[in-house]
Amino acid sequence: MQDIYANLSPEAAIGIFDSGIGGITVMKELVKRMPQERIIYFADSARFPYGNKSPRTVTKFAADIVQFLLRYEVKLIIAACNSASAMALPTLRQQFQAPIVGVIEPGARSAVEKSVSRNIGVIGTDGTVQSNAYYDAIKRLDPSARVHQRACPLFVSLVEEGWIDTEATRLIAREYLQPFKELDVDVLLLGCTHYPLLRRVIGEFMGQEVALVDSATSCAIEADRLLADHNMKAQRKDRAEHSYFVTDTPDRFRRLGEKFLGADISKVDLVNDLGD
Amino acid sequence: MQDIYANLSPEAAIGIFDSGIGGITVMKELVKRMPQERIIYFADSARFPYGNKSPRTVTKFAADIVQFLLRYEVKLIIAACNSASAMALPTLRQQFQAPIVGVIEPGARSAVEKSVSRNIGVIGTDGTVQSNAYYDAIKRLDPSARVHQRACPLFVSLVEEGWIDTEATRLIAREYLQPFKELDVDVLLLGCTHYPLLRRVIGEFMGQEVALVDSATSCAIEADRLLADHNMKAQRKDRAEHSYFVTDTPDRFRRLGEKFLGADISKVDLVNDLGD
Repeated sequence: MQDIYANLSPEAAIGIFDSGIGGITVMKELVKRMPQERIIYFADSARFPYGNKSPRTVTKFAADIVQFLLRYEVKLIIAACNSASAMALPTLRQQFQAPIVGVIEPGARSAVEKSVSRNIGVIGTDGTVQSNAYYDAIKRLDPSARVHQRACPLFVSLVEEGWIDTEATRLIAREYLQPFKELDVDVLLLGCTHYPLLRRVIGEFMGQEVALVDSATSCAIEADRLLADHNMKAQRKDRAEHSYFVTDTPDRFRRLGEKFLGADISKVDLVNDLGD
Repeated sequence: MQDIYANLSPEAAIGIFDSGIGGITVMKELVKRMPQERIIYFADSARFPYGNKSPRTVTKFAADIVQFLLRYEVKLIIAACNSASAMALPTLRQQFQAPIVGVIEPGARSAVEKSVSRNIGVIGTDGTVQSNAYYDAIKRLDPSARVHQRACPLFVSLVEEGWIDTEATRLIAREYLQPFKELDVDVLLLGCTHYPLLRRVIGEFMGQEVALVDSATSCAIEADRLLADHNMKAQRKDRAEHSYFVTDTPDRFRRLGEKFLGADISKVDLVNDLGD
């Protein structure tokens, strides 16, 4: 088997992509854990969202982005988008000779570790749920686990609209999540990068006995481990500078991104020629 | 001034485009009014939605579509998308030597005709509202009118999710529409092709004294008039066959489209090379 890390340098950047702003939650965990790593973040904001689109389309979009990231020196690519991880990852790994990590496997591992009852709930976009990617990943780790899935597409719109904690948000959460209460899950996997922003409303409804798991932390741990295993961790001592690319206007990305990241985003570049 | 109808045939098709399924409401009105006209409907479902994207991106996407439609014999192109009409129409008309109609002017005309108090409310996507296209169009028709605008982005997601008449939908409607009640408008312009599907909830909240105006009907009337003025109405006697093109998988489009259209959609073609 070919070593895809062979010609890569530890000082190269980590590429992270998402359809939009959501993957910033993964980036935030990564920066906290590995402040010396340089990150190139790519948001396909012109074609956002991915979650209600077909595997074929999402795979094409994700491949466009990986192609773009490979123009830069990257040592690891993170598909920080649940929909892209669920629908496109196997194809991307076939198509490109580059280390690519998604959020599904780390999230599934974390859910399996936390569940005692082996009754696990998974929420995500239509695309993620229909792909069965979380279902399959959890079953691979623990064939005895029972996995209950539901798509909650309105959650993304609520977060994008900033309706984090309104009466309507609580009503919608109740409507989506009621079945999980009846199924007596002890872990609810937030299978979309937007959902952690609704953690409070979701947690209030589900109650303290249900652990909410998101992929951001477990994905950062996985990336850390992978780089360490391949002697690919950056050696610089100072905090790294990051770069941002978007396919729609930078302003909105910067505004929301700084909120998600909790830090300044200095320079965002507009990419015009993606997929051409 | 060049006659953009010269060299066009009355038997050519009418091209209609939208970012998604919403423009089908315009198509439905058109078919009702002119059953003998052949229609080519184009839904840019892979890049849906347009309403939260920048004028620059929406204009590029719309130009890709017009370019595509012009490969076929079309005598009139209808931008049946409020966001594209609001953000891209002037540029499209400069860029292409083809008759292009949007939904903004017909909708504005209808609103001005129906308002007695000259106090008009407009709701739409972020992009449509920020463009001020309805505001400007209404003011051109009646400088004395007072125009109050608000973006209601969650409405599109609610319709796409099929939450037409839920408690959450009513709460969200109240949140968005309360200011219009206080402003005492007598017309509320539904400036997004998805909104007519929420007509009942919106109407219940606004009350009978407020007229709800949407652009679908007025746009169909405008298209009819334009074709008649230029002797461009099709002469065939039987009902015409229509064609559909989408940029994401045809299945979802067909399912939702038939619901919107209230008729069978036989053949939907996937377009892979748009914008390349």
